Amino acid sequence: MNVQEQTGLKSEMLAMAKAAHDAARTLREAGNETKNRALNEIAAALRTRTKDILAANKEDISCAGLSGAMLDRLMLDDARLEAMAKGIEAIADLPDPVGRELARWQRPNGLDIARVATPIGVIGIVYESRPNVTADAAALCLKSGNAVILRGGSESNRSCRAIHEAIQEGLRAAALPQACVQLVATTDRAAVGMMLEGLDGALALIIPRGGKSLVKRVQQEARVPVLAHLEGICHVYVHQEADLEKARAIVLNSKMRRTGVCGAAETLLIDRTILNSHGLPILTDLKNAGCEIRGDQTVCTLFAEAKRACDDDWRAEYLDAIIAVKAVDGLQDAIRHIETYGSQHTEAIVTENSKAAERFLSGLDSAIVLWNASTQFADGGEFGMGAEIGIGTGKLHARGPVGVEQLTTFKYVVRGNGQIRP
Amino acid sequence: MNVQEQTGLKSEMLAMAKAAHDAARTLREAGNETKNRALNEIAAALRTRTKDILAANKEDISCAGLSGAMLDRLMLDDARLEAMAKGIEAIADLPDPVGRELARWQRPNGLDIARVATPIGVIGIVYESRPNVTADAAALCLKSGNAVILRGGSESNRSCRAIHEAIQEGLRAAALPQACVQLVATTDRAAVGMMLEGLDGALALIIPRGGKSLVKRVQQEARVPVLAHLEGICHVYVHQEADLEKARAIVLNSKMRRTGVCGAAETLLIDRTILNSHGLPILTDLKNAGCEIRGDQTVCTLFAEAKRACDDDWRAEYLDAIIAVKAVDGLQDAIRHIETYGSQHTEAIVTENSKAAERFLSGLDSAIVLWNASTQFADGGEFGMGAEIGIGTGKLHARGPVGVEQLTTFKYVVRGNGQIRP
Repeated sequence: MNVQEQTGLKSEMLAMAKAAHDAARTLREAGNETKNRALNEIAAALRTRTKDILAANKEDISCAGLSGAMLDRLMLDDARLEAMAKGIEAIADLPDPVGRELARWQRPNGLDIARVATPIGVIGIVYESRPNVTADAAALCLKSGNAVILRGGSESNRSCRAIHEAIQEGLRAAALPQACVQLVATTDRAAVGMMLEGLDGALALIIPRGGKSLVKRVQQEARVPVLAHLEGICHVYVHQEADLEKARAIVLNSKMRRTGVCGAAETLLIDRTILNSHGLPILTDLKNAGCEIRGDQTVCTLFAEAKRACDDDWRAEYLDAIIAVKAVDGLQDAIRHIETYGSQHTEAIVTENSKAAERFLSGLDSAIVLWNASTQFADGGEFGMGAEIGIGTGKLHARGPVGVEQLTTFKYVVRGNGQIRP
Repeated sequence: MNVQEQTGLKSEMLAMAKAAHDAARTLREAGNETKNRALNEIAAALRTRTKDILAANKEDISCAGLSGAMLDRLMLDDARLEAMAKGIEAIADLPDPVGRELARWQRPNGLDIARVATPIGVIGIVYESRPNVTADAAALCLKSGNAVILRGGSESNRSCRAIHEAIQEGLRAAALPQACVQLVATTDRAAVGMMLEGLDGALALIIPRGGKSLVKRVQQEARVPVLAHLEGICHVYVHQEADLEKARAIVLNSKMRRTGVCGAAETLLIDRTILNSHGLPILTDLKNAGCEIRGDQTVCTLFAEAKRACDDDWRAEYLDAIIAVKAVDGLQDAIRHIETYGSQHTEAIVTENSKAAERFLSGLDSAIVLWNASTQFADGGEFGMGAEIGIGTGKLHARGPVGVEQLTTFKYVVRGNGQIRP
């Protein structure tokens, strides 16, 4: 890209930012009805445009030349488009996250202070090959009153553009500005760099959605706040007072229900004293379900089919049918292991001892800690929050599932009758 | 600084980061009693060490060779030290912000989900010449369960070190790790750069406290989240249906109670229709109080003593006895002006018309919006939140006064009885 092209792209991106800023102004004061109308019209447009979207997707697929999991991420079909439309309708059905009174109190001088939820402003979303992010992210931002600038992966560019056209149709039908949802049309990577710089202060927040390398790049280069999910190295700890049947069900479900989600368990910790009683049946379940077991010395001695784990295994986010298994010496040892190797995403303890459970729940500093439940509940829908844009693993603003409420900020509204400060 | 010194400083800073991380672990689980004991012991130590601290401060002052406002910022005396100690005791008296149940709900499958406040972790605070920040920031972080690494300005280095010794004495008395509050001893600016890089992931948050150039540098260079107050270009809008006496009192107080605070009004907007009835007495009040008036054409015609404002005046944070004054054509014009020139900090409307007031309160996207009250209420103490570390002007995590509650994050605690995900 030469200097002239660079300058052209830059002014194009800044024009998008300006339009988004103005659209955000309108959207901030748009009522729930208007936003819902747009969402439902977008869902309808996705259905009427199914043919065009699938044709665009077919072209993307033939150009990308992908296979396996990569192809699966990119691929759309009737069922997936219908799921996309239904997802948007479900977001419309959520209560309006904007305008909620988060707190309200009176001061002795008579001032009435309210903390009220407001949209964040303009959000930038950078994602990879999943075209459905175009619709999901747009819908979540719209519902929370934020304008959004989307930048999808180059391999899904045609699909994203076709979906974006449906979104534009929905916005028009609800008389909302087209710039509420903009898609960066160019596949030039320089556009991402410009977004990470914040587009002259226009972007209030960047959300990366994709693999670890994308998220790392965004976290390292962004000059604006980032809300991101980096890794889910989730643990299940089977405590010596665990109920055997609960432990078997929870470990199997945490690991094997779906192995590719961030809430899937990656490491199993078992108290040394119950290796024979609990460890063996649990490992047998996993093995029978097709899971590879990588154990420490003790586990490998106990279970002949286990491979020997190396240090990297304790830090691995397999996202696959593999589990690292370690024998531990009680609760403190388990906590220490999780603190050392974990990613502060989601951890579960299985025990009938409530004191041990509470020590685990309070002792760990992960976004989600569970007692006697599967780590696969780490999901906005399962939390009752509706759709989510991801699971935040940072400490600021939001942690855990990021749904429409987490895409808002707040302001203080103070009502007085002439008060001045002494 | 040569390469060897650079490497030495780096390993020193990383050792501080490691110690802070471990201290944060202890502090996270420290109860309110322990934290309060430390705070009260710190207050006591500040009092017993008054002589040493004032001697150190005298040395700082003689070396710095400052005068006026700069000197005033650096200077300590008995009264200021006593205020510092009292401030810390007041922080001890606040309810524990850690462990608060922010929300709790049940899911149809029986899962019990609680959102619980937790400390953020290790916070870095970079400040300038005010030595009291050493004590205030340490106390706020301690109360909220966070370890802190402090880096004060070089001109207040001796004062900060003397105050830090009192803090260490208090921590010892409460049997808390010394590394809960660490002070970067070197005045080398490279240390700040290392903090902005996050000290290998140890810092969860950076808070700059100081002038605009410090805050801008931190915002531009930090690789970790920043909680900052950039500018307070606060507006008072006197609406055509304003009560005259309220308007006079609120404008005078907003501008002149203290001109150097971020909540001080910098621009006054008055509806054109009430310039004679309200504008004249308000401007006369300001003039009599020693305030310089910079008006637009209309205001200068109305009020002979006003100087002519240029475009920069609408963007000025004077922090001084100067006010920019503009005649506007009603509510929408006022909102447009504030959106164009404001810093989204604090704005007030004076009116007896509740509809106009509500349109102003909902139409503006500032951290604090007030109706019939002085902008100088933009303060954690006035909000009933206790001491604050500043007023956040960003959109993420916290806006407005940042007190101990805003120095916490949260996690989800999920209690089940064997639930697995279908």
